[in-house]
Amino acid sequence: MAHITLPEGAPGIIGPMIAYPETQKHLSGLAEVLLRGPSSLTSGERETIAAYVSRGNECRFCCESHAAAARAHLGENRSLVDQVLADAAGSPSSPKMKALLAIADKVRRDGRLVHAVDVERARAEGADDQAIHDTVLIAAAFCMFNRYVDGLGTWAPEDPAAYVESGVRLAEQGYVNYDFDKG
Amino acid sequence: MAHITLPEGAPGIIGPMIAYPETQKHLSGLAEVLLRGPSSLTSGERETIAAYVSRGNECRFCCESHAAAARAHLGENRSLVDQVLADAAGSPSSPKMKALLAIADKVRRDGRLVHAVDVERARAEGADDQAIHDTVLIAAAFCMFNRYVDGLGTWAPEDPAAYVESGVRLAEQGYVNYDFDKG
Repeated sequence: MAHITLPEGAPGIIGPMIAYPETQKHLSGLAEVLLRGPSSLTSGERETIAAYVSRGNECRFCCESHAAAARAHLGENRSLVDQVLADAAGSPSSPKMKALLAIADKVRRDGRLVHAVDVERARAEGADDQAIHDTVLIAAAFCMFNRYVDGLGTWAPEDPAAYVESGVRLAEQGYVNYDFDKG
Repeated sequence: MAHITLPEGAPGIIGPMIAYPETQKHLSGLAEVLLRGPSSLTSGERETIAAYVSRGNECRFCCESHAAAARAHLGENRSLVDQVLADAAGSPSSPKMKALLAIADKVRRDGRLVHAVDVERARAEGADDQAIHDTVLIAAAFCMFNRYVDGLGTWAPEDPAAYVESGVRLAEQGYVNYDFDKG
């Protein structure tokens, strides 16, 4: 049971998003810009980073939700998401993505772990300032979303199949106009 | 030197806020609602939680900035901020604030560490759902802000005196209309 009163049946962040609309507005707006706004990274890449960080923090709801959104973006390359979640360094991701995922994991653990050499590696593989900025802020933001979801004791479906439909809706309609009533 | 090109001389989060206005808008909006919007907690209490979490994450810029804002809100009780930062449990904070600070520190480390007993203790001392929600989200949000500031390798003044003026402006004018040009 969640630590505060939340709408019955709403999983993960959906409950607090419905119950606290003043903060929801900004959280949704941030997710929309970060994951779907203009960037040198594709939405599939950014959703993959979000899922990867959430997996590192062991937040089931966020990991499954954003892995599902990443799969919806990636289409026939959807298996890449699961390969990254299983073993990012050994996955067939681009060298640029591997360098960015390494930065994201450092940010997740402690922002101060990111050193010039990590950023130089990403730049050498084609990452620009925007890609580095977005990677750092996505990783940081999911350290917030993960803690919001878990710190309130919300529940999350265990079956990955439960996230497929919302993943498609996130990829198609985004975060600002997301219909929370559909879960 | 920061890991990406940022406006020269701008400390901490100010640089990325100026350079990336699309995300700044939502980050500022979130801080405004969380720290100054309607709540059962005072802004002084909420800024103290923000500073306390940032101290735990050892993010100098965020800790000093929000400690300065908390002092500006607390007026003649300003020394309470420093007592909380030095030893929260031993500080002369209210029992409610001590219970909320304990929840905030757990969220900072891992949201899953918050158990029903922690929340019951806060409720027994007078915390309502809004206070518990706001504490969890403030702690979670500062895990984001701290990582954004540190993950980009921004610089922060060492002298606490450098934060006094911005703390007063944050307390008086807030986050949405904050004049970044003044630092």
